[in-house]
Amino acid sequence: MTQPRQVPGPSLELIFETIHGFQRTGALKAALELDVFTGIADGAHTAITLARRAEASERGMRILCDYLAVLGLLTKTAERYELTPDSHAFLNKKSPAYVGTAVEFLLSPPQVDPFQDVASAVRNGGAVPGQGVIAPEPMAPLMALPAELLADLLAVEQDAKLRVLDIAAGHGLYGIAIAKRNPNAEITAVDWANVLEVALENARAAGVGERFRTLVGSAFEVDYGDGYDVVLLVNFLHHFDPATVEEVLRKVYQALRGSGRAAILEFIPNEDRISPRVPAAFSMMMLPTTPHGDAYTFSEYKRLLRDAGFSSSELYDLQPTYFRVVLARK
Amino acid sequence: MTQPRQVPGPSLELIFETIHGFQRTGALKAALELDVFTGIADGAHTAITLARRAEASERGMRILCDYLAVLGLLTKTAERYELTPDSHAFLNKKSPAYVGTAVEFLLSPPQVDPFQDVASAVRNGGAVPGQGVIAPEPMAPLMALPAELLADLLAVEQDAKLRVLDIAAGHGLYGIAIAKRNPNAEITAVDWANVLEVALENARAAGVGERFRTLVGSAFEVDYGDGYDVVLLVNFLHHFDPATVEEVLRKVYQALRGSGRAAILEFIPNEDRISPRVPAAFSMMMLPTTPHGDAYTFSEYKRLLRDAGFSSSELYDLQPTYFRVVLARK
Repeated sequence: MTQPRQVPGPSLELIFETIHGFQRTGALKAALELDVFTGIADGAHTAITLARRAEASERGMRILCDYLAVLGLLTKTAERYELTPDSHAFLNKKSPAYVGTAVEFLLSPPQVDPFQDVASAVRNGGAVPGQGVIAPEPMAPLMALPAELLADLLAVEQDAKLRVLDIAAGHGLYGIAIAKRNPNAEITAVDWANVLEVALENARAAGVGERFRTLVGSAFEVDYGDGYDVVLLVNFLHHFDPATVEEVLRKVYQALRGSGRAAILEFIPNEDRISPRVPAAFSMMMLPTTPHGDAYTFSEYKRLLRDAGFSSSELYDLQPTYFRVVLARK
Repeated sequence: MTQPRQVPGPSLELIFETIHGFQRTGALKAALELDVFTGIADGAHTAITLARRAEASERGMRILCDYLAVLGLLTKTAERYELTPDSHAFLNKKSPAYVGTAVEFLLSPPQVDPFQDVASAVRNGGAVPGQGVIAPEPMAPLMALPAELLADLLAVEQDAKLRVLDIAAGHGLYGIAIAKRNPNAEITAVDWANVLEVALENARAAGVGERFRTLVGSAFEVDYGDGYDVVLLVNFLHHFDPATVEEVLRKVYQALRGSGRAAILEFIPNEDRISPRVPAAFSMMMLPTTPHGDAYTFSEYKRLLRDAGFSSSELYDLQPTYFRVVLARK
């Protein structure tokens, strides 16, 4: 009587869970708004104590917490709720890895509204032009670890002079991670003026402000200069169609010194395009929210890099994150 | 290089999949709109052939189908997509078990919109009064099997005269299943006039129209009469608070003959309220869409039935569906 249904043959479970995906979104958003995870971290472990803390109804809080337990974001023993390792690390405001700000961005209308009509995006092959948004700042809390891992991968510990160009630098964290490791590294960050203000602030806070230069303008139009040892292309190329990606790569090639390296950090699915789950699913996020964006495979990047003139390219996993890096040599 | 990430410690995967639940909803809705599953059943197995059939872009179709494969609703081998047993049975228009109409109801604005502000429902302990909708007709395709299983459970094969009252009968399928098995069964269906028109049509189509009576009005206000052998309460009580449920049960008790039976068919979670997943998650569907609805446990039904005068109650699984039945004797 107490076992979940285990019957062979077709089941509606996955179909209904997929259809009701919006309920998961709504419940997790509400739990963050009502500070449920932080409340549990602070010692409120029952529906009644969590409800009091959030000025909510006990019945409503019980239903919400039970649902979070069904989803695997809480555990429940008798009437007591506990955080899981995931929710403790990422959903609790007291944790340095709290992702609440990123969630607000991911659930903002430009990200969510296009999913009301995915069929039109499938017909068009992409979003209605002009709908795309690029707002990397709220994602910064998620970028600290991959920024360190990319600096590891580039092996920039040495004191040699190193000129780094960071294209669409956003929060600037990737260049800053390099500058912190190599006292002779100089970073040039390309982005819009208002974005670069934040990046410069971050660079100053990290003590590398005097080696952090800014180049204001569109990555497609601004003059990069040349002689760079490393060019960073972090979470940028997925916004564009292959021809535009190649155009950027040609410009990057010109900006590099002989045998300089380009580093493309992205969600890069396997060649089957359906694994691993997280990078593979990223294509669907791009379809209705950008006119031509995609999660390109390594073989696609390899071809585009070769066509842009690069002599070699290699793929690296950035574990434990879901990102991968293509390192290409001029 | 090709394995999904398997690192111990906290992971963002479940959190991001939960936050992005709305993307699953949007993608499955689009796939139904664009006839993807029916197209594959008809022999279109690649993005290009499916795109042509749907007058859609190949790129858009490829991204959609890959995402459906990530979700487990299609399989992919090289560039060829195939249906799974689930999508073949339930998402393909040629299948008698196609659930597309139910999905339209489940994704209608009254069902979806309240999930934009679950936090308010948690604060209130339920929906803003008046927002609830009860529209069982689109769910009829899903009810054929449980209707047969409930008739099995009630063991109504015999020819004895059997008077059945079906409260909030909706499509009428539960009473009709009984009338088809017992030529001496008479069904009285309670519901609103426009709903009963459909039920009566269904009864006539099943050849039991002359034994199908209708009683127009609110289940709370109409006079049921008395002397019934069986009263059906199918997917009705979850809309109300416990006091209202008990009020209905008292009225049902009065309508039954001595040792008659009430049959409550519902999503009934285990006592922990977090398993099995499908009935446990149903509470969250009720919270923002009804003022006081809930998925009650067996111990809650048992207490309410006892307080309403019933002498005994038993719980039955209706496998392979997710429904359970409480049979209570007067």
